[in-house]
Amino acid sequence: MNAQAPLPIMPLPARATLGSGNFVVDGSLRVVFEGHTEPRLERARQRFLDTVFRRTGIPQWPAPAANAPVLTIRTAGPSAAVQEVADDESYRLNVTPTGVMLEAPTPLGAMHGLQTFLQLIKLTPEGFVVPAVTIEDRPRFAWRGLMVDSGRHFIPLDVLYRTLDGMEAVKLNVFHWHLSEDQGYRMESKRFPLLTEKGSDGLYYTQEQAKDLIAYARDRGIRVIPEFDMPGHAGAWFVGYPDLASGTGPYHVERHWGVFDPAMDPTRESTYKFLDTFFGEMTALFPDAYFHIGGDECNGKEWDANPRIQTWMREHNLKNDEALQAYFTTRVQELVTKHHKIPVGWDEILQPTTPKAVVIQSWRGAESLADAARRGYNVILSSGYYIDLSQPASEHYVVDPLAGPAGILTAEQQKHVLGGEATIWSELVSPETIESRIWPRTAAIAERFWSPANVTDMASMYRRLAIVSETLAWHGIPYAATSEKMIQRIAGAGDVDVLKVLASVVQPPKGYTREGLKPYTSLTPLNLLVDAVPPESDEAREFGEIAARIADGSASAEDHKQAREWLTLWRDNDAALEPTLAGSALAKELVPVSQGLKESAAIGLAALDAIEKNIPVSAEVQARELAALKGLEEPRAVLVLATVPGVETLVKAVRR
Amino acid sequence: MNAQAPLPIMPLPARATLGSGNFVVDGSLRVVFEGHTEPRLERARQRFLDTVFRRTGIPQWPAPAANAPVLTIRTAGPSAAVQEVADDESYRLNVTPTGVMLEAPTPLGAMHGLQTFLQLIKLTPEGFVVPAVTIEDRPRFAWRGLMVDSGRHFIPLDVLYRTLDGMEAVKLNVFHWHLSEDQGYRMESKRFPLLTEKGSDGLYYTQEQAKDLIAYARDRGIRVIPEFDMPGHAGAWFVGYPDLASGTGPYHVERHWGVFDPAMDPTRESTYKFLDTFFGEMTALFPDAYFHIGGDECNGKEWDANPRIQTWMREHNLKNDEALQAYFTTRVQELVTKHHKIPVGWDEILQPTTPKAVVIQSWRGAESLADAARRGYNVILSSGYYIDLSQPASEHYVVDPLAGPAGILTAEQQKHVLGGEATIWSELVSPETIESRIWPRTAAIAERFWSPANVTDMASMYRRLAIVSETLAWHGIPYAATSEKMIQRIAGAGDVDVLKVLASVVQPPKGYTREGLKPYTSLTPLNLLVDAVPPESDEAREFGEIAARIADGSASAEDHKQAREWLTLWRDNDAALEPTLAGSALAKELVPVSQGLKESAAIGLAALDAIEKNIPVSAEVQARELAALKGLEEPRAVLVLATVPGVETLVKAVRR
Repeated sequence: MNAQAPLPIMPLPARATLGSGNFVVDGSLRVVFEGHTEPRLERARQRFLDTVFRRTGIPQWPAPAANAPVLTIRTAGPSAAVQEVADDESYRLNVTPTGVMLEAPTPLGAMHGLQTFLQLIKLTPEGFVVPAVTIEDRPRFAWRGLMVDSGRHFIPLDVLYRTLDGMEAVKLNVFHWHLSEDQGYRMESKRFPLLTEKGSDGLYYTQEQAKDLIAYARDRGIRVIPEFDMPGHAGAWFVGYPDLASGTGPYHVERHWGVFDPAMDPTRESTYKFLDTFFGEMTALFPDAYFHIGGDECNGKEWDANPRIQTWMREHNLKNDEALQAYFTTRVQELVTKHHKIPVGWDEILQPTTPKAVVIQSWRGAESLADAARRGYNVILSSGYYIDLSQPASEHYVVDPLAGPAGILTAEQQKHVLGGEATIWSELVSPETIESRIWPRTAAIAERFWSPANVTDMASMYRRLAIVSETLAWHGIPYAATSEKMIQRIAGAGDVDVLKVLASVVQPPKGYTREGLKPYTSLTPLNLLVDAVPPESDEAREFGEIAARIADGSASAEDHKQAREWLTLWRDNDAALEPTLAGSALAKELVPVSQGLKESAAIGLAALDAIEKNIPVSAEVQARELAALKGLEEPRAVLVLATVPGVETLVKAVRR
Repeated sequence: MNAQAPLPIMPLPARATLGSGNFVVDGSLRVVFEGHTEPRLERARQRFLDTVFRRTGIPQWPAPAANAPVLTIRTAGPSAAVQEVADDESYRLNVTPTGVMLEAPTPLGAMHGLQTFLQLIKLTPEGFVVPAVTIEDRPRFAWRGLMVDSGRHFIPLDVLYRTLDGMEAVKLNVFHWHLSEDQGYRMESKRFPLLTEKGSDGLYYTQEQAKDLIAYARDRGIRVIPEFDMPGHAGAWFVGYPDLASGTGPYHVERHWGVFDPAMDPTRESTYKFLDTFFGEMTALFPDAYFHIGGDECNGKEWDANPRIQTWMREHNLKNDEALQAYFTTRVQELVTKHHKIPVGWDEILQPTTPKAVVIQSWRGAESLADAARRGYNVILSSGYYIDLSQPASEHYVVDPLAGPAGILTAEQQKHVLGGEATIWSELVSPETIESRIWPRTAAIAERFWSPANVTDMASMYRRLAIVSETLAWHGIPYAATSEKMIQRIAGAGDVDVLKVLASVVQPPKGYTREGLKPYTSLTPLNLLVDAVPPESDEAREFGEIAARIADGSASAEDHKQAREWLTLWRDNDAALEPTLAGSALAKELVPVSQGLKESAAIGLAALDAIEKNIPVSAEVQARELAALKGLEEPRAVLVLATVPGVETLVKAVRR
């Protein structure tokens, strides 16, 4: 069996060989250590057992029999005191009916192996078991991250902790914490208390909380890298410290979304003095070797508008804003390096003078990633992994840090591609909705980062993603239940089941479309159907697959039956939904969406009839229907009817 | 409008008068204080606002306009430093379209008023609102409690915290914490560390945790009363301290359920010396004026079997075990009183010599409650409120502490009836299932304790219970979602929707039946369908009501349609469910349950046909069908088919 075989886990391991028989998981399960151990491993054992018993609903026996089956963890030695990119994360897991051996060079591998074991637990007629299997596993990329934007919307700690739990489950190992934005500065500074006093609306993390989170992450094999974005995206700093800025102010915590003018003043030594002190404080707080300084999307308008800065630029022979930012970046890099950290920044910080020690995080495209790697910089890819953009998992899954332009790099150059990071920018997520935007799609991205490059089967990915989604619920990540509750809220006193029919086939529009459809600010409630539904409709995807099979003649009788059932349900739902929509301020905007579903389903049913009875359609009628469907593809109430493409497939398949 | 009017809240207030118009709840909501304030009120405000914004999904505005609508809390003065039974909990809430005034003599009333406001929030076409209303409210009983048994199953703190949240929502004010049992001793003692070291399987609360929980409860207007059960139900103490016991040991943490022989030795002074020290430690930890010493179900067998104890009894002229327990109780009461606490105990501690300061908690029946009150003891009722026994809410709701035998007490005697407590004994609940056993039924009991005696309409109660159930979900109490997850777990890789059809119409058997159907110990997994479903099937209750209307000719066409739909669904479900049951160790025992549902539904459909077509049935056929249904009423897989009584109603309604 190779890695493509149907182990119901994500990410798939590098190598797996199925054995025969099952290891039974019940209350007698014991975990013992051999070789190296440390408190972190003890805690990992307890967490593992807690998850096993939460997953199975079986209480742990206080004193299992001495001959009860055992899971042995044999760890060769410690990992680094502060987790490093180069740390060995490999493990070997051997499950037999009589016992389990988990071997790893370091605790990191041991912890990954435990997560693999957890995902392998399944219910059979004989109870909960893990099938006999030998797994040899190691990650393809050393840097497997998730960036959470706590700047635009403050994300409470309980959400972050659950996010770290989910990251552990899918073997992600970098939590990139975006901590400052025009809309909020979020990390306590004892040296500069006005940063939070004036720039956070009271929504920030204390240093104690950060320490706890870092320890929690370390326990899960996850590095924590803070990002303080500069010189742009820093408006919230200036409310308390206007002298840092290049304009005249006054500054305020921004409520709108976009790229704003406020920028740090690169021309004054006081800016670097401030940052030196600030970095001293923050680099002491965050133990990781890397330190993210942002650097993206500085529009330079404050620089252009400030005669003093313009004069200074001429004096220093800096020709344009890019050159000024390069100067700033160089100074900032020097400060970060002085504080013994390796700087990381977004694409824009890469300039001809950028030292080779800097890591470039590519958000603008695979081309810029390949270019930086070719020039000898370590790089991580985020372009293609923007999970805030409501793309389906499949679109992220096909993005490979070493494909495309990076595919033609030399082996030596490719070594500079450390991995990638999914990014959840938070303009359009709230503490309530962020988890359903992170999960389960991030699990598919985690597989891209961990599993061999040839793990690409899309059907397998979606099948396993559904399983992992349930696993995450047992890990305590309640995004599916939260989505349910939000739909219940929208229904108010109305009929939630009827609303769910609509909810199951609509999606947020992809990309940056949504912000153009309605004015959003940081105070806009994110409690409408577009916020409640997942970014991707499973039902619509399945309907689309069925429609494609009907169109190419490969559909089964069951396919035809399912398509008809769905189309009928969708066509008839609008009448039942009407009173619910009329009674709820959160639902009333859905009237045209529901009508659109009815109209498209009616067209789909007519097409299905014609296909099944082999009745031809005139070109005029078909054109009219396709035009109608084109109209129905347009977002209504900031929602897309995800069933329309499937209906189009059916209409086009009718004989002319 | 009187209290019976349809405010969607629970408990219903003493008086309410609806106004006209609505107060709009949005991000601009502000809460300001007048009069007395204290940190607890500040925290209550923040908690209130958090709940409002969680409920509505609306973010709070950082700086609402000065003229934004305001909720004013006007508190006359502080409540007692340690909450007392006699504290004034009344409040007056006046909601108008332009503002809200909440007045209360103490913070307790203010906090209750905030909970009332939260329950009044509803979604309309105009947004979230609270209808204009004037409420004058105060509790009928001063002692409104919930007892949680942390002894038999250890209940983790997160569950207890959520339970306190729920108690606050329904205005319960006593958390009675049952902390020791034969199956486990659960509270850290620094003086007697072996209590937890040997008697808890490592599952206990530290004193720091207890202090935090007490503070959390006080913030919610809830007193915390610890119970250390003695002289019986104390086997777990003796594992570490065998000298306390009356037998020779060795003692162990009990794994089975029932009444066991181990009992404290009332004849040795060392016992009282131990308890004196122990009480000194625990009364310092728990600030409440009351201290529960248990006293129930001591079977005396260790006393009978110990010659030394028998000799001592003869020497002291104690004629039997009751007399010996009375002696013990008197000594223990003296010790508790010495430590400045008022003792509380179960029925059994009431003896001729019992001091009048002792509070009697009646579990054996309303008669013993009335008897104690007549004799001048303060009493609280738990008989009728045993929520571990899987009775429907209606059966608890009709139990009134001042009805029955207590109804004929004099007004003066009735004043001794302080209130009541729901009790969740934990033989058959786990941390996972306990919340679905506490909620929502405890809300109905809370209404009995709070609302006027004439609030008795059962249909209204069930209608509002369903609403409160959703409210509790927004308060973060996830029992409905947990139940869903458990059913998902049972289905394994099978079809959860089909399993849900069965789950929606089965119930645990009522009373103590369940333990007779299967051997249960503290290590038995509680992860089967009987543990996942609520104690009461709403669908079966509604079906029963419809069947009754069909039988008496008052049914609507909609009733007939619904009955037929359900019966058809139930009859046809078994075939669809078969593969799921076959694939899951947790579900396979459900085969006869599912078949029983099919059989009873088929009988019901035939009866419905006969009724609707006015076709007579022979006495023989009817008798055969009723006999079959009788058989189907018997528990299978420890589950009762709750639909059978409704089917019986239909069968009996067919013309002969």
